[in-house]
Amino acid sequence: MSKIITISRQFGSGGRTIGKLVAEALKIPCYDQDIIEKVAVQSGFDKNIIAEKGEYAASSNWFGNALSSVTNAPGTLNVQDNLWVAQRAVILELAQKGPCVFVGRCADYILQDKYALLRTYIYSDLESRKKRIIDVYGESSVSPEKRLREKDKRRTAYYRFYTDLEWGNPQNYDICLNSGTIGIQKCADILIDLYTS
Amino acid sequence: MSKIITISRQFGSGGRTIGKLVAEALKIPCYDQDIIEKVAVQSGFDKNIIAEKGEYAASSNWFGNALSSVTNAPGTLNVQDNLWVAQRAVILELAQKGPCVFVGRCADYILQDKYALLRTYIYSDLESRKKRIIDVYGESSVSPEKRLREKDKRRTAYYRFYTDLEWGNPQNYDICLNSGTIGIQKCADILIDLYTS
Repeated sequence: MSKIITISRQFGSGGRTIGKLVAEALKIPCYDQDIIEKVAVQSGFDKNIIAEKGEYAASSNWFGNALSSVTNAPGTLNVQDNLWVAQRAVILELAQKGPCVFVGRCADYILQDKYALLRTYIYSDLESRKKRIIDVYGESSVSPEKRLREKDKRRTAYYRFYTDLEWGNPQNYDICLNSGTIGIQKCADILIDLYTS
Repeated sequence: MSKIITISRQFGSGGRTIGKLVAEALKIPCYDQDIIEKVAVQSGFDKNIIAEKGEYAASSNWFGNALSSVTNAPGTLNVQDNLWVAQRAVILELAQKGPCVFVGRCADYILQDKYALLRTYIYSDLESRKKRIIDVYGESSVSPEKRLREKDKRRTAYYRFYTDLEWGNPQNYDICLNSGTIGIQKCADILIDLYTS
């Protein structure tokens, strides 16, 4: 049914782990936020190249939306915009290589209408997420509630800013899974089955 | 994993059909809105009985919320509230009989913490829903867009009023499925698999 799986996920929902499990089972690559960011930096998207691409992109619709609320002078891009442009280019390049899983970075939006996508949203209840971020990322001086709230806020704002869509609204996805009640392995199994059926 | 499946669904998403397919495959009953309403009327929930149950219920938390925005005099119930009380009682009675599927009527909310639930939300894109309501319910003098918009508004308001929760917010469900892209039979298959695993 689909060639590329995109995973949007709440922080602490295990979305990245689910992406890796799915990719392993399907023997396809899994590109997460760290990889995409690293490739963007390594690929020589220096400031000039990004600025040039940015200008080109600024004429298209998606970027027009994003720019409308940027406080920069018209036609200029800030650091986050540069990274967005670079990451977008990396995502489009990686997608061309063949079937894969993307975790985060608005890949669902960037690849829409270009590829057959299985658009996934992974979420969970607050208690499960609190437990998971302590297990996976360790304790911190900031309370788990605050860490989750801030990440959620950032992701919502980032997604809204660059896509003009509401992050976590089912309408933007093919399937939304509660990893806290369904379980991480079962979420992966459902996606593997959907992808191959 | 779960004994009772609850299905919340957008009008025209095929949620009721999915409920029936799942129930058939699992050989358990499927109670939809029509059945629940009919049983409520047949079961002799006349005005007095409903009023009595209503008074009892008014002391509990869920009903306190609902009543707070009703324009009736304190302690009295309007027709919709009476039906809600009657339907709630029917849902609780039917649930006691054993494993089953409930479609609509806030069954997810009514049965929470009382049973092991598989809480499902079925939705779809506007085009698929428009096509489906014409196929299933026939043409009407009102445009498909308007029929969908009004039903969505009513369901959102009903759910919010009686549960104080946001209808269609993934956080309230275990799984949300886009029947337009996944397909109605495949949605049913996923739920059957989840219920039996």
